[in-house]
Amino acid sequence: MAAAQESSKFCEAFPMKSGDGPKSYAKNSTFQREAVDVAKQLIVKEIAEKLDIDILLSSKSNTFHIADLGCSTGPNTFSAVEGILEAVQLKYQSQMMNSQVPEFQVFFNDHTTNDFNMLFKSLPQNRPYYAVGVPGSFYGRIFPNASIHFVHSSFSLHWLSRVPKQVVDRNSPAWNKGRIQYSNSTDEVVRAYEAQFAEDMGCFLHARAQEIVHGGLMVIIIPGRPNGSSHSDSVANATLLLVGSCLMDMAKEGVLLEEKVDSFNLPMYYMSPQELEAAVEQNGFFSIERLEYLPRVPVDDTVSEQLASHLRAALEGLIKQQFGEEILDELFDRYCKKVEEQFSILEIESGKPTHFLAALKRKAN
Amino acid sequence: MAAAQESSKFCEAFPMKSGDGPKSYAKNSTFQREAVDVAKQLIVKEIAEKLDIDILLSSKSNTFHIADLGCSTGPNTFSAVEGILEAVQLKYQSQMMNSQVPEFQVFFNDHTTNDFNMLFKSLPQNRPYYAVGVPGSFYGRIFPNASIHFVHSSFSLHWLSRVPKQVVDRNSPAWNKGRIQYSNSTDEVVRAYEAQFAEDMGCFLHARAQEIVHGGLMVIIIPGRPNGSSHSDSVANATLLLVGSCLMDMAKEGVLLEEKVDSFNLPMYYMSPQELEAAVEQNGFFSIERLEYLPRVPVDDTVSEQLASHLRAALEGLIKQQFGEEILDELFDRYCKKVEEQFSILEIESGKPTHFLAALKRKAN
Repeated sequence: MAAAQESSKFCEAFPMKSGDGPKSYAKNSTFQREAVDVAKQLIVKEIAEKLDIDILLSSKSNTFHIADLGCSTGPNTFSAVEGILEAVQLKYQSQMMNSQVPEFQVFFNDHTTNDFNMLFKSLPQNRPYYAVGVPGSFYGRIFPNASIHFVHSSFSLHWLSRVPKQVVDRNSPAWNKGRIQYSNSTDEVVRAYEAQFAEDMGCFLHARAQEIVHGGLMVIIIPGRPNGSSHSDSVANATLLLVGSCLMDMAKEGVLLEEKVDSFNLPMYYMSPQELEAAVEQNGFFSIERLEYLPRVPVDDTVSEQLASHLRAALEGLIKQQFGEEILDELFDRYCKKVEEQFSILEIESGKPTHFLAALKRKAN
Repeated sequence: MAAAQESSKFCEAFPMKSGDGPKSYAKNSTFQREAVDVAKQLIVKEIAEKLDIDILLSSKSNTFHIADLGCSTGPNTFSAVEGILEAVQLKYQSQMMNSQVPEFQVFFNDHTTNDFNMLFKSLPQNRPYYAVGVPGSFYGRIFPNASIHFVHSSFSLHWLSRVPKQVVDRNSPAWNKGRIQYSNSTDEVVRAYEAQFAEDMGCFLHARAQEIVHGGLMVIIIPGRPNGSSHSDSVANATLLLVGSCLMDMAKEGVLLEEKVDSFNLPMYYMSPQELEAAVEQNGFFSIERLEYLPRVPVDDTVSEQLASHLRAALEGLIKQQFGEEILDELFDRYCKKVEEQFSILEIESGKPTHFLAALKRKAN
């Protein structure tokens, strides 16, 4: 058996800013929370309509296993888990005797470098579930066969397992000079990112198909781009493009080395619902029960600061590693100003939603 | 349900020194490792003779669940788990087709304040099991009903859930003035510690009886004292007595306040095999399959330094909290000298073993 072998292939980890200081991920995830709140209602509906409560039958322990993949340190993960748990309880109560409502065990997963100490200290008191932490990349196997009844993953699947190798290789036609991601880049770079995404999504679905019980559900909330839009038309890519442009400004002013920008790329990819559908079809073990855009978070005049805090919490680790801690304040100050100047960039495809929710059911074969 | 309510009663945590520096627990647990190595052979034997491989039948996932309670940050926990896993594999291979050898999921448990980040980073590469971390006191419920097949706990059950309240209460007849634990103390203090032990052990067995599947095994390795010996005759208590005596010396010399010693007590208790038997009988859900002393680790001329490092790794957190970090070096230098002067104290009841191993089986009711 090679439980860990399989996942140790995925060696790169991109932890969110840990701890609970003012710049931490825990304090700067409101962008996600708003989408999670909307998604919550859809999850409740999905559980009520689609969850097969017989999946626990013949399980000795009568325990319902929920996994949150890419949990970071909270608080969004706790709020999402509570919503799921209440919906499952309701479903059991409505269909069976109260005494048969299961116990719950929740598996909080993230990279080994995630701040699990902080996650564990933040666990809600009096939580109605048994909590465990699961270190490892969700692009590999992290659970035994047929051991999970419900998988949730929110704002995590846009992180690739790694930066595609070619884009940082000077001798490759896909070398991504002067940019930090694929949108607005050459076709070769775009194709390299698309291929990495396809490989990663394949691994993700392959692993989950083994881990989720037949009839089990998986709900994923994905920051992506609308069907039929180009990569550069996506708001997420537009905001990252501005980070790259700030870095290049700083390189031109001599604050940092241009080579450092050339060799820096973000391991993020914003898929469309169609791309997800294609991956699910190729995998073959899941049916798509729901695929739905989430409403866009309305933009107000504090958006530039919010975006800067949000991005900083998400990217600080990666940027520090490449450019050093000393550039962080300046970079995000510049970023904040650039967003204010180019406010219209956030209104790309105005009104068109970008985040979406997918509910998949593990087929019974 | 009150999964967390039950365990949140147990609010005190006594983490081992975290990280992997020269004074860390990870680097100073050779005393335990030697006993663990001897215990390993007994565990293998116990699994070969007593494990009922049918306990996995009717489990959908065919996963064997091992829990290590009080795992700290390693490396002993990994070595123990590997031994158990290999023995279980062997048992399955000898009795069933190879294809039916189960997968393994290992639950590493310790207090919420344990350094799980370090534990996760130290997990062996290519481990043949799925690893998870479980934060919380093992004196409360930490797992769902009937969800664990094998429990292992090594050198953890001498930690009480708390210091008995009376011994730090100036107005109680059990006030433990001028001492930091119960041996060589008054009858009232001894009784307070004995009562705390009995309560804790009751909670421990009560929780495990619910969590372990019928027919499941629990092997615990306990640093204790021989049957029929007094508390003060135990080597473990003798070594702790010397720590107390160093603290009192320092108080008399004005290095620290005597009141600080008066209000400081160690939450540790060294039980005898008979005391364990009584607790198991009272609980009623386990049969004792084996109860056996482990051989004493031979003492050589580096023992004083080894003991000082070992005790420092175990007690540093508690002592720092009460007396401040600045006294640590001096305290353990004094301790080391005192052990050298009073070498004979380590030969108390010379030859008599103190650590013991108990193998319990969850009755099928």
